[in-house]
Amino acid sequence: MRLPLRAFHTFRSLFSQKQTTNPQRRGLGGAAMRLVQFCRHGDRGGIRVGVELGEGLGVVDLKAFDPTMPSTVRELLEMGDQGLERAQRAMTCGQSVVEHSDIWLLSPVLAPEKVVCVGINYRDHCLEQNVPIPNEPVIFNKFPSAITGPYDDITLPSESQEVDWEVELAFVIGRRGKHIKEEDALSYVAGFTVANDFSARDWQMKRNGNQWLLGKTFDSFCPLGPALVTTDAVQDPHNLGIRCLVNGETVQSSNTDQMIFKTATLVAWVSKFVTLTPGDVFLTGTPPGVGVFRTPPVFLKKGDVVECQIDQLGSIINRVV
Amino acid sequence: MRLPLRAFHTFRSLFSQKQTTNPQRRGLGGAAMRLVQFCRHGDRGGIRVGVELGEGLGVVDLKAFDPTMPSTVRELLEMGDQGLERAQRAMTCGQSVVEHSDIWLLSPVLAPEKVVCVGINYRDHCLEQNVPIPNEPVIFNKFPSAITGPYDDITLPSESQEVDWEVELAFVIGRRGKHIKEEDALSYVAGFTVANDFSARDWQMKRNGNQWLLGKTFDSFCPLGPALVTTDAVQDPHNLGIRCLVNGETVQSSNTDQMIFKTATLVAWVSKFVTLTPGDVFLTGTPPGVGVFRTPPVFLKKGDVVECQIDQLGSIINRVV
Repeated sequence: MRLPLRAFHTFRSLFSQKQTTNPQRRGLGGAAMRLVQFCRHGDRGGIRVGVELGEGLGVVDLKAFDPTMPSTVRELLEMGDQGLERAQRAMTCGQSVVEHSDIWLLSPVLAPEKVVCVGINYRDHCLEQNVPIPNEPVIFNKFPSAITGPYDDITLPSESQEVDWEVELAFVIGRRGKHIKEEDALSYVAGFTVANDFSARDWQMKRNGNQWLLGKTFDSFCPLGPALVTTDAVQDPHNLGIRCLVNGETVQSSNTDQMIFKTATLVAWVSKFVTLTPGDVFLTGTPPGVGVFRTPPVFLKKGDVVECQIDQLGSIINRVV
Repeated sequence: MRLPLRAFHTFRSLFSQKQTTNPQRRGLGGAAMRLVQFCRHGDRGGIRVGVELGEGLGVVDLKAFDPTMPSTVRELLEMGDQGLERAQRAMTCGQSVVEHSDIWLLSPVLAPEKVVCVGINYRDHCLEQNVPIPNEPVIFNKFPSAITGPYDDITLPSESQEVDWEVELAFVIGRRGKHIKEEDALSYVAGFTVANDFSARDWQMKRNGNQWLLGKTFDSFCPLGPALVTTDAVQDPHNLGIRCLVNGETVQSSNTDQMIFKTATLVAWVSKFVTLTPGDVFLTGTPPGVGVFRTPPVFLKKGDVVECQIDQLGSIINRVV
């Protein structure tokens, strides 16, 4: 399924606010970019890193521009500020451009060490479930094998009859850290992207000893994309409209200002337990409107098309097969 | 802390049963070996793959023997049968041998895509907790960042007051698969090793919304080793004495014949949900004798030394710091 890219209307304006005056808002490298991973049609094995030039303007193929550049966003992040600075120079040169029609976008991060997920993290989602606002984050995870691309198909597993959608703001760690202070936390974040935390409710809620992992981690249950929008290219990640549409009908519509534990708090919290490393992905919880809490409950079936949109970041569109 | 290797007394006899007649027992590559990862003293960054020659006989440095061989066990496994066959030829030649006194053993697998864990998987452990025998596996996980070496120190986190031991039989996936049939499952297993599933009971049992992940995944909470003993070098992985000693006192002592869901069942079960990939580690549950179910409960403190032993596989010894 090839679907048009959307939500690039805010793209050009991003460059006007490349540097911010609040040091706590400044992200890794200080670069305002939309990083993607892609392969050329007919070459699905060959992953490339690209920088988007804006709607209709194509993507700079970093390795074509400079053969010493890495082939994955994770490797680019492991280069630290230098990697992002070189990517930004390539974007400015505007050479080695490939057209969107010639490439297939992959998830902007593949094979991270961790996919950290946060449960029950929207105030309005707590009201929907009639549960109290949690006083500390609830952390679970998916295996990296669940990650798929922004326009890839989602495989409905025969083992579940209750597959549900969850649009989520995701962020990606840009540098290694442990016991990170909340006031320093945003400097560890490379950027933001859109996720759908597909969830098999039967396995999450009724089986596997109440451990959510299996219901959350079926192959293809974590589409990400379309781009990793660097921290300095997002005005305020906690004031973004966030929506999910199933077959064109809006089923979730909220704002990331409803998040209970925000990006910096989550980075600080999880880094009390584990060392964070470049490429680690965080999914920050979903707003109300999921299928399982509808009356009667609604679950996905083959042929459904699920679109997740977040202002400034873009949208991912996945068909259920 | 440098501690002597043990439990190699059965080592030489293993080679007499290199090939088995039961095709369901035959592991990946048909090779009987003890694979290790190590670094030379003073060169902790440089990971090497080795094949142990037996107690006191040293380790063949695969890359020194053949510079085209990979530097990690995961890469070796990704080569398929050919990788293990070449490793076995190197072992037979017995050249490029380094002494154990010149090296530091690392975990035999690093940076796997998954560390899959199984809860409540010993019959005698169910009796200890007074819980029924589960009718399907309970699957949770640790992040790969929790893995540490067989003789490395375990860091007692300031965030937990209830850190406990759990000796476990671990196995490592040798080839990629999904929806693997139970009768084929052992051919996907590269080999077995010893694990300690360190667990912060306060975080596992009382916080984080009953999701076990955080309590299980503190950095250093998954020591593995000393070697990846290939499937054809283990007579019967489900009839092995398994013990944990704290400061020399035996606290767990059972047999892997108490496992409710055995290796093949676990491979088949988890592969219904996710694609398994070379290097994936499974921890298969712990026998009775953990600290939390003692009266009164006992937890680890700085200076404690925890040793996990499994017959034919060896032992790992970790000091709590």
